[in-house]
Amino acid sequence: MVANRQIHLVETPKGKLGPEHFHLAEATVPAPKAGEVLLKVLYVGLDAANRAWMQGATYRNAVEAGTVMAGGALAEVIESKASGFAVGDVVFADTGWQEYAALPAEALTKLARVEPLTHLLSLYAVSGPTAYFGLLKVARAVAGETVVVSAAAGSVGSLVGQIAKIKGCHVVGIAGGAEKCRWLVDELGFDGAVDYKAGDFHKQLKAATPKGIDVYFDNVGGDVLEAVLFRMNMKGRIACCGAVSQYDTATPRGVRGVPGLLVVKRLRMEGFIVMDFQADAAVAAADLKSWVAAGKLKVQEDVLVGLEHLPQALIGLLSGENRGKRIVKVA
Amino acid sequence: MVANRQIHLVETPKGKLGPEHFHLAEATVPAPKAGEVLLKVLYVGLDAANRAWMQGATYRNAVEAGTVMAGGALAEVIESKASGFAVGDVVFADTGWQEYAALPAEALTKLARVEPLTHLLSLYAVSGPTAYFGLLKVARAVAGETVVVSAAAGSVGSLVGQIAKIKGCHVVGIAGGAEKCRWLVDELGFDGAVDYKAGDFHKQLKAATPKGIDVYFDNVGGDVLEAVLFRMNMKGRIACCGAVSQYDTATPRGVRGVPGLLVVKRLRMEGFIVMDFQADAAVAAADLKSWVAAGKLKVQEDVLVGLEHLPQALIGLLSGENRGKRIVKVA
Repeated sequence: MVANRQIHLVETPKGKLGPEHFHLAEATVPAPKAGEVLLKVLYVGLDAANRAWMQGATYRNAVEAGTVMAGGALAEVIESKASGFAVGDVVFADTGWQEYAALPAEALTKLARVEPLTHLLSLYAVSGPTAYFGLLKVARAVAGETVVVSAAAGSVGSLVGQIAKIKGCHVVGIAGGAEKCRWLVDELGFDGAVDYKAGDFHKQLKAATPKGIDVYFDNVGGDVLEAVLFRMNMKGRIACCGAVSQYDTATPRGVRGVPGLLVVKRLRMEGFIVMDFQADAAVAAADLKSWVAAGKLKVQEDVLVGLEHLPQALIGLLSGENRGKRIVKVA
Repeated sequence: MVANRQIHLVETPKGKLGPEHFHLAEATVPAPKAGEVLLKVLYVGLDAANRAWMQGATYRNAVEAGTVMAGGALAEVIESKASGFAVGDVVFADTGWQEYAALPAEALTKLARVEPLTHLLSLYAVSGPTAYFGLLKVARAVAGETVVVSAAAGSVGSLVGQIAKIKGCHVVGIAGGAEKCRWLVDELGFDGAVDYKAGDFHKQLKAATPKGIDVYFDNVGGDVLEAVLFRMNMKGRIACCGAVSQYDTATPRGVRGVPGLLVVKRLRMEGFIVMDFQADAAVAAADLKSWVAAGKLKVQEDVLVGLEHLPQALIGLLSGENRGKRIVKVA
């Protein structure tokens, strides 16, 4: 009999997430009921939002202690009792951190296979459309504007910057460490990159944005958001995508300059979730595909192998150790 | 020879504004140059923003120590060297806190006289259009939504709530003290009012907004904004008009929940200034006029008499002692 290895969240972290909050368990492989399919998990995608889910209800229910850790994954149908799904189909679903999951049809998004398959996670399923809609529909960046993106070496940030370049913007990334900053400029074609861990971060940010900032794609919140607010131009727009600086702490802090600077500079700050743009998903996918084919958009992946590495993969992502989309290969 | 009494800002306040920051001086009445008019100041309007101007450059230059305190006023042309302006014309201008001012034509907005004349300050010149555009163009409140407004007993807030009622919204005001709260409900027709100074403010706010909050018109920032963020509904909108809780202090504080709650609830926060909507000013004025004529919109004024009372008028406004538009009659 085949076992289903799972990673459980054993305790809700109060402060920093650590390996002690997880444990590896074995369960039996579930049997799909009518309307369900049995999935074999291929790749699990890691996101800073995974940590936010432990803090309480967000755009989904909170992940509770004692249950399988939640997470979006690419999976293959190995048994189907749901119409519309056949053995061999590849789907995106919140399978959680485990080797097998039985899920109802409505929890699955069927995807056409691409080469490499991991692009479904690193580009098409979440990161690409998030970058695309946040930049173009929420912040409405246009050619000639200065766009700043934080967590710029991450999966979403690295795509935001490249899409902004494709659209003719002046692009500055904010990332942790000189090496990542060099990579953004030398490999991804950003116009500038600023190291938020450097002592002279504010000075660097000012130097990199001589015309101020028109659009800020915010993945981090906190101090970096505060610093950017002071550099924003009149009528600037801030697409609020995430707040990773505030997820892995017991003491989230407030942002000064809100709402004062919003009034003075007539700024717009707007939160969004990629699911809100489902209706336009095909347009985004077509653009992303064509840009990759034309060599204008590089997709960076950071793949670890083995279900057991999932806890450390997330812990490391929260401290900024990844470059591009962090993925754990499970099967 | 007639003297021109003036109130100077003698020192930029670091913490709370007090009478010691002002002094009364006498100057000579200026002579208008070519292209200028000589104005006799009739009424000075007080605004929380007057205090913000002392903190540094906002949407206007900072008010500097040693100069006449700035302020918007209703004034009459008593000598004209500018084409388009005749003796007897009434204008709105930043004359500053003094009895006479010589200003160029481009600094003046000529206004048609209304009865009472003070409505030009309390309704037409600033407060009315600010309430109107912030609620209807920035926050885009529509019938059936729950609208919350802070500093609700102030000049802008009291109009915001009444306009929202006219538009069919469920309206809750936030104000300081039980008496103001009763006035909002009994006299202005708000559906509810919450006392932010009460120990059970959060509980009161929850009880007054059983369906959550769709639109928040924010005049105060700080703790009240933070409390409201937690009650906002999905896709809610916050019109950022001011941050009076943060002006009169040496230690402005950050707002928690930004940007986290903006992402989770897909909220939009947007700052604005009434001048941005100049192109639609006539539409707003016509609506405001018709609502007053129909008895649907009450204009509350709080008039003090005598230039020398201006410092205390502003100090008192910052601590919330006014109800409706605070005006000082100068001439």
